[in-house]
Amino acid sequence: MKETIPNVLAMRYASEAMNSLWSPRGRILLERDLWIAVAKAQRELGLDIPQAAIDAYERVKNDVDLESIRKRESVTRHDVKARIDEFCALAGFEHIHKGMTSRDLTENVEQLQVFRSLELIRTKAVAALIRLAKRAEQHKALVISARTHNVAAQPTTFGKRLAMFGEEFLRGIGTLDHVIETYPVRGLKGAVGTQLDQLTLFGNDTKKVAELEQRVLKHLGIARVLNAVGQVYPRSLDFEVASALYQTACGPSSFATTLRLMAGHELASEGFLPGQVGSSAMPHKMNARNCERLNGFEIILRGYLAMAESLSGVQWNEGDVSCSVVRRVCLSDACFALDGLLETFITILDQMQVNEAVIAQENRRYLPFLLTTTILMEAVKAGVGREQAHEVIKEHAVAAAQAMRSGTSRDNDLFERLAQDSRLKLSRAQLDALVEKSAELTGAAQAQVDAFAKAVLVWLKKFPAAEKIKAEPLL
Amino acid sequence: MKETIPNVLAMRYASEAMNSLWSPRGRILLERDLWIAVAKAQRELGLDIPQAAIDAYERVKNDVDLESIRKRESVTRHDVKARIDEFCALAGFEHIHKGMTSRDLTENVEQLQVFRSLELIRTKAVAALIRLAKRAEQHKALVISARTHNVAAQPTTFGKRLAMFGEEFLRGIGTLDHVIETYPVRGLKGAVGTQLDQLTLFGNDTKKVAELEQRVLKHLGIARVLNAVGQVYPRSLDFEVASALYQTACGPSSFATTLRLMAGHELASEGFLPGQVGSSAMPHKMNARNCERLNGFEIILRGYLAMAESLSGVQWNEGDVSCSVVRRVCLSDACFALDGLLETFITILDQMQVNEAVIAQENRRYLPFLLTTTILMEAVKAGVGREQAHEVIKEHAVAAAQAMRSGTSRDNDLFERLAQDSRLKLSRAQLDALVEKSAELTGAAQAQVDAFAKAVLVWLKKFPAAEKIKAEPLL
Amino acid sequence: MKETIPNVLAMRYASEAMNSLWSPRGRILLERDLWIAVAKAQRELGLDIPQAAIDAYERVKNDVDLESIRKRESVTRHDVKARIDEFCALAGFEHIHKGMTSRDLTENVEQLQVFRSLELIRTKAVAALIRLAKRAEQHKALVISARTHNVAAQPTTFGKRLAMFGEEFLRGIGTLDHVIETYPVRGLKGAVGTQLDQLTLFGNDTKKVAELEQRVLKHLGIARVLNAVGQVYPRSLDFEVASALYQTACGPSSFATTLRLMAGHELASEGFLPGQVGSSAMPHKMNARNCERLNGFEIILRGYLAMAESLSGVQWNEGDVSCSVVRRVCLSDACFALDGLLETFITILDQMQVNEAVIAQENRRYLPFLLTTTILMEAVKAGVGREQAHEVIKEHAVAAAQAMRSGTSRDNDLFERLAQDSRLKLSRAQLDALVEKSAELTGAAQAQVDAFAKAVLVWLKKFPAAEKIKAEPLL
Amino acid sequence: MKETIPNVLAMRYASEAMNSLWSPRGRILLERDLWIAVAKAQRELGLDIPQAAIDAYERVKNDVDLESIRKRESVTRHDVKARIDEFCALAGFEHIHKGMTSRDLTENVEQLQVFRSLELIRTKAVAALIRLAKRAEQHKALVISARTHNVAAQPTTFGKRLAMFGEEFLRGIGTLDHVIETYPVRGLKGAVGTQLDQLTLFGNDTKKVAELEQRVLKHLGIARVLNAVGQVYPRSLDFEVASALYQTACGPSSFATTLRLMAGHELASEGFLPGQVGSSAMPHKMNARNCERLNGFEIILRGYLAMAESLSGVQWNEGDVSCSVVRRVCLSDACFALDGLLETFITILDQMQVNEAVIAQENRRYLPFLLTTTILMEAVKAGVGREQAHEVIKEHAVAAAQAMRSGTSRDNDLFERLAQDSRLKLSRAQLDALVEKSAELTGAAQAQVDAFAKAVLVWLKKFPAAEKIKAEPLL
Repeated sequence: MKETIPNVLAMRYASEAMNSLWSPRGRILLERDLWIAVAKAQRELGLDIPQAAIDAYERVKNDVDLESIRKRESVTRHDVKARIDEFCALAGFEHIHKGMTSRDLTENVEQLQVFRSLELIRTKAVAALIRLAKRAEQHKALVISARTHNVAAQPTTFGKRLAMFGEEFLRGIGTLDHVIETYPVRGLKGAVGTQLDQLTLFGNDTKKVAELEQRVLKHLGIARVLNAVGQVYPRSLDFEVASALYQTACGPSSFATTLRLMAGHELASEGFLPGQVGSSAMPHKMNARNCERLNGFEIILRGYLAMAESLSGVQWNEGDVSCSVVRRVCLSDACFALDGLLETFITILDQMQVNEAVIAQENRRYLPFLLTTTILMEAVKAGVGREQAHEVIKEHAVAAAQAMRSGTSRDNDLFERLAQDSRLKLSRAQLDALVEKSAELTGAAQAQVDAFAKAVLVWLKKFPAAEKIKAEPLL
Repeated sequence: MKETIPNVLAMRYASEAMNSLWSPRGRILLERDLWIAVAKAQRELGLDIPQAAIDAYERVKNDVDLESIRKRESVTRHDVKARIDEFCALAGFEHIHKGMTSRDLTENVEQLQVFRSLELIRTKAVAALIRLAKRAEQHKALVISARTHNVAAQPTTFGKRLAMFGEEFLRGIGTLDHVIETYPVRGLKGAVGTQLDQLTLFGNDTKKVAELEQRVLKHLGIARVLNAVGQVYPRSLDFEVASALYQTACGPSSFATTLRLMAGHELASEGFLPGQVGSSAMPHKMNARNCERLNGFEIILRGYLAMAESLSGVQWNEGDVSCSVVRRVCLSDACFALDGLLETFITILDQMQVNEAVIAQENRRYLPFLLTTTILMEAVKAGVGREQAHEVIKEHAVAAAQAMRSGTSRDNDLFERLAQDSRLKLSRAQLDALVEKSAELTGAAQAQVDAFAKAVLVWLKKFPAAEKIKAEPLL
Repeated sequence: MKETIPNVLAMRYASEAMNSLWSPRGRILLERDLWIAVAKAQRELGLDIPQAAIDAYERVKNDVDLESIRKRESVTRHDVKARIDEFCALAGFEHIHKGMTSRDLTENVEQLQVFRSLELIRTKAVAALIRLAKRAEQHKALVISARTHNVAAQPTTFGKRLAMFGEEFLRGIGTLDHVIETYPVRGLKGAVGTQLDQLTLFGNDTKKVAELEQRVLKHLGIARVLNAVGQVYPRSLDFEVASALYQTACGPSSFATTLRLMAGHELASEGFLPGQVGSSAMPHKMNARNCERLNGFEIILRGYLAMAESLSGVQWNEGDVSCSVVRRVCLSDACFALDGLLETFITILDQMQVNEAVIAQENRRYLPFLLTTTILMEAVKAGVGREQAHEVIKEHAVAAAQAMRSGTSRDNDLFERLAQDSRLKLSRAQLDALVEKSAELTGAAQAQVDAFAKAVLVWLKKFPAAEKIKAEPLL
Repeated sequence: MKETIPNVLAMRYASEAMNSLWSPRGRILLERDLWIAVAKAQRELGLDIPQAAIDAYERVKNDVDLESIRKRESVTRHDVKARIDEFCALAGFEHIHKGMTSRDLTENVEQLQVFRSLELIRTKAVAALIRLAKRAEQHKALVISARTHNVAAQPTTFGKRLAMFGEEFLRGIGTLDHVIETYPVRGLKGAVGTQLDQLTLFGNDTKKVAELEQRVLKHLGIARVLNAVGQVYPRSLDFEVASALYQTACGPSSFATTLRLMAGHELASEGFLPGQVGSSAMPHKMNARNCERLNGFEIILRGYLAMAESLSGVQWNEGDVSCSVVRRVCLSDACFALDGLLETFITILDQMQVNEAVIAQENRRYLPFLLTTTILMEAVKAGVGREQAHEVIKEHAVAAAQAMRSGTSRDNDLFERLAQDSRLKLSRAQLDALVEKSAELTGAAQAQVDAFAKAVLVWLKKFPAAEKIKAEPLL
């Protein structure tokens, strides 16, 4: 007998709500609801199904005995058959699954699991987005040294940096939203997609069969249905979903990467819970473990995307099921991974700490270099020739950089050097005053934060439930 | 000196129109147009740029001398600088690239290349879609044996099978269209995304800088612009594009896979040009080479998708350029690959041949099995007990299948066996009459073809240029 | 409380032996063994660890209470600490984990899980290989129509076709074997890889620390150890493993793909268990479900390979743990997937059925075309001019192919046409005699089967345990 | 007419030697050499091929006129046929390609291109390895703060860090070497792998056909040949190659990632050419562009690996050519990418600069925390109670960390705090003396560097040509 090996993404990282969508029991419940919905609609459209049968199914639908189903499957060697038998035995009727093939059940139920997972993720993503916008607003004026090539380049603000990752996140959520809003189910299409069996049941009454499908859609809560399918819906639809999940992860993942970089410079950290301390021996060690984990989830999503991708564009005729075992793994697990990523992201945003003193130190180190064009203009105003000023500044800037790198001086002493050079006619006080202006050097940074926050508001209005979402405690 | 190694996707497979978007010369032209557009707008908004300069740039913009630019680069070691110098030297002015950083040029131009490639691909995809719909209509009543698990399962029609792949294609085109309609450019955002340099140029007049960007957008023909970016736009936008390109390839690729299967059964072939014959020694050998190539392009797209994916979610601060060499490869080459795929797809659709006689043979082989439920009903009507009839039919069906597999009989002799069994009370003529009804067994197949064709019309109306598109001759 | 969601690959597809290597309990056992081995070696090398402590740990090491450990972790928030505490509490001593960091435990234990999984897989792969060689020998003279581009091309034998996939499989097993034989563990290297803590424990006695590591290696049963590592071993080693797993899957997967194609032509099937019948209504429907599943596992392995790949080449300094959550998923699950694939492969090889009569039919259809060069020579011998003969044959070959495709004739009537054409001077009997020679047209096919079988014998001798391996019953 | 779009990887990044292996002309030369080798061997083994013909082919083999071949192809629509015709027309004989199919030519030539590329890459990788070992030796005693989770953890040396990446690189080279040493070619196997055509040519003399293949192997310089193949060799062999290429890139890529991190802290840089200065305005800006590019190449290799992977395990029968267009792209381009990566890597290793002063600053910041256990022991020696000492140290360590983070103190003032606390009985001088001991805290770091350098020597001895390799100037 095998010891149970749990699905680690589900059990350690994904939320309870996501788990219940994909649990063995959760799946049985969705199937039974679908069977009942079909039977009801068939009855209303004229099939001979007694109301008592439907009532009986409704009554027992929550009695899920996985072990009993497993035993039935070991006899019939057919999983859907085993679940039909179990449900019928419980209800004492045989009126479900009429005119349906296995795929009429499983494709639609799996699509429902996917669809509801996407909705859950969208709300949670908006919850993270709101927090990100708040953080961006909070730090919108905090000047930091923007880095390109990992080297300080120009000033920006920390809020703007957050908005930048927010912008990427927004785009991902937009893609996710588009997939949800246009997501089509396969519907009741029969063994090879021609609806032959339902048409036979209803004496070739195409209107009734169309109406039946509409009622199933209504039950599922999904507005669109595919038209010409085979045994299965096109697997590139799974790819589209996996791709949207991946893209949703990218903004948070870029953010987490950068926070890990900032933590290495002690500029910020992902924070600790109140009361918590880092290693007592090494109190500076505030590891960005959650950020690392977040980046890990992004990589996991690449794997499931690769699986979905490999199933796409390779359909044999009306469908083969080389996809079967793959989809058992990649659909649920991709949802678990992104759900875990968002839980982690929310926790980081809630706990993140910013070390303004260290940021100020970094700015002092680099700002003098970034201010050289301004200094040039001031020197010209003070009556120095432009070319003369340029040469003097360049000479000292290079020397100051070399001095820091060689250890001759520890700090950026460019201002000192310039103040002492009489050719430039600028006092130390005049130079220091320029630093105060550094906020002006952040250009449109603050306005961009505001614009980002405004864009987030639109999403919050569309999905107000996001406001109440709280991260579950992380392991 | 290196011998020139050409880009094989561009030179062998992609169309001339796609090539000209990505050629070295084509790129220079796009850059120069952007520089001129910025300069014009800056002049109109008050910067001191003489009209004569703009006229001069306009005059020389088509004088592209790649060798001269290469020489400049070998001196300056900076590609953008070399191209600025060349253009200015030609024009005799130095008024371009004002307040712009390299990325203000390169990001926007590369996005324009991407955007126009997407538009080109969308039109060509619609051109293929139209042909697919026509083929589906043409064969909408042609009964074939639908296969699941690669084994005959129920009847369908060939037109329906085509519509099924068309449905997958439609979904891919829908995704592509959504990306195009919402595609945002980075705009003129400066070195770290704060627009500092343009703001400085315009004396911090934010309205003017916003207006400048709007005019650049208008020049590009792209409606949306990103708000809070860094040195670069989020690389997951490239992933989104690559993903849409991949998804667009999936419908055609599933189709090509299935046509290769059908060719193996001689049911259909991708056809030959008029006059062309297969190998004279082996005249049955009509290889599905174009279909194979189409499937090859789909796999190539997976590779470029993997590259774009690996660039996503890993941004360091305001941007590093570990993406640079990757994007040089994957953006253009993914566009070439999909363009080549669509050229191939159109050619196949234009030349595809269907062997109705072989299809009929296959149907005869499998239909008797697929008709057993109908036979049962007929026998009951003829006065046979239901259980009795069921047993007789099953007995003969199993025997008929075994006989074919063991070589005892070559054809499906189920009807013969049933006609000879007096227990069933059905004559051979009665049984044969059932085959005539097989079209009825294709359920909603024809209606689905019509619905597909109708959906295609909507796209044709949106993109009427698609109608004129012809495939370039394949190598 | 979350309902348990099981790991589907482990529970449904992987063998019990593989499961026990990766189960929560199995992992605890491996850790405890390692702790005891380290403690023993430390004692022998002079550390003050009482024998009584070691005895106590040995005594309780199998008392695994996962729930108790979970509770400890929920207090300490540190998984390794919780497991140390539990083990010490059980033993009543605190003498394990001396001078070890968490990674000294976890890296080595995980590598041991990987290593033993690889060994298990190697043996099982050889078990499959033996069966494949037997099948190849069994069918080594059975002539089939070899197909290129999915179209009949030349004769070969079915045994040769199997040997061809065997050759691919052999190469994969060779790669796997090379990884196993050269696989290095990280060893006891301390927090950043400098062995600082063990060196401190042993008063900087480098020989003793080296000896300690050697004893740990001996315990693990792995011969090689890495030298200069950081906190972690290089993650590209995981990639190398995942890549070898994937390559091992390729031969079987190519085989399964081709068997699915053959099943579509009814040439062969993956077989049924004795007594089992296909669908009674559709007795021809012997779906290649196991082959499809096998192909599915190959795709799953691509996903885990993508994860391992994304962890490679991106190490930050001495190590970050963005890999942590990814490795929890991809290492075990890739092993489960390949284990499941091999279980499936063995089952297919045990049950596969070949329909010789259908194969003969196919040969009759295509052989006449494949024999045209031989016919030409015979006609020349019979006194016909070479060019004349060539023209006559070509004329009839094209006509025969067209007739089959258009339905005019159902069979390949080339011989009839040729016999009736007096220009050729060959009787029907003479022509039919040529078919008997078709076995000669399979060239070196049989010799290649023998060479393959011989190569397999070498592997069997190296891994005799493979002979006893039986597949577990499939779900 | 299409403007030529060059292959960017070949033209901008790969070396001249690599280019000449894959250029259109280079390919023609390899083909012609193979044809001549086969013809010679056939002649020696008794086929009627005049020596004059072979001499004629030898004489004209370097006359490569691509345009003439292109014209022939546009007529024949068959690329191999066009190249045969051209060669024969030049020579005035028709004695090549006897008993060969297209794949007998193309598979072997492409494998030869792959094989020689692998050899070239191996030598260049060893050249990089030597430089890395030299750098590791050079800096083997330079103490740096090892980082885990991107946060300082324990001391190590810079040489050890380099050796760590070298260890990863060594493993990759080992895999590459194994692939080369066991690489098998397909050989002359005919249309479906049965050697039918050569056997026919040689009157079924199997020994002669075997001897012919051996001579071809000798010509190719590849020792192994596959036995049972189809039309093509198993595509998972291409995957194996692509995987080895990728793994070879991982060590360098981890190194480059970490150097980019170090550059962000100004600890080291990838250096500049003599005389070169960073931006004069921003002299601190020494961008790690080459390291970024190196990381870019690693990502590019992922893409080509994905392509090769998708071709594996999906063979239809004896072979289809859906792989054809894919292999045209991925084989050459993966070789170009890794070649470019190694060129870049060598350049970085040649130019890398280490800022010892900045490293010392960083150590001063973190060492006090890392020394706390040593301080504890010293305090106990000085007569302080262990628990008392522990409490005092912890109290001050936390305070010192907080002070730095909040900006109260800029430097790590732990020693000052401890010296001023009379409870601890340690003077500032005593504490400072501990810092001198920090080299002792690097444990086995230096020994590991020596062991690494020794391992590298083995490779140098095997491939002495590596010593002479110089990087070509980078663009």
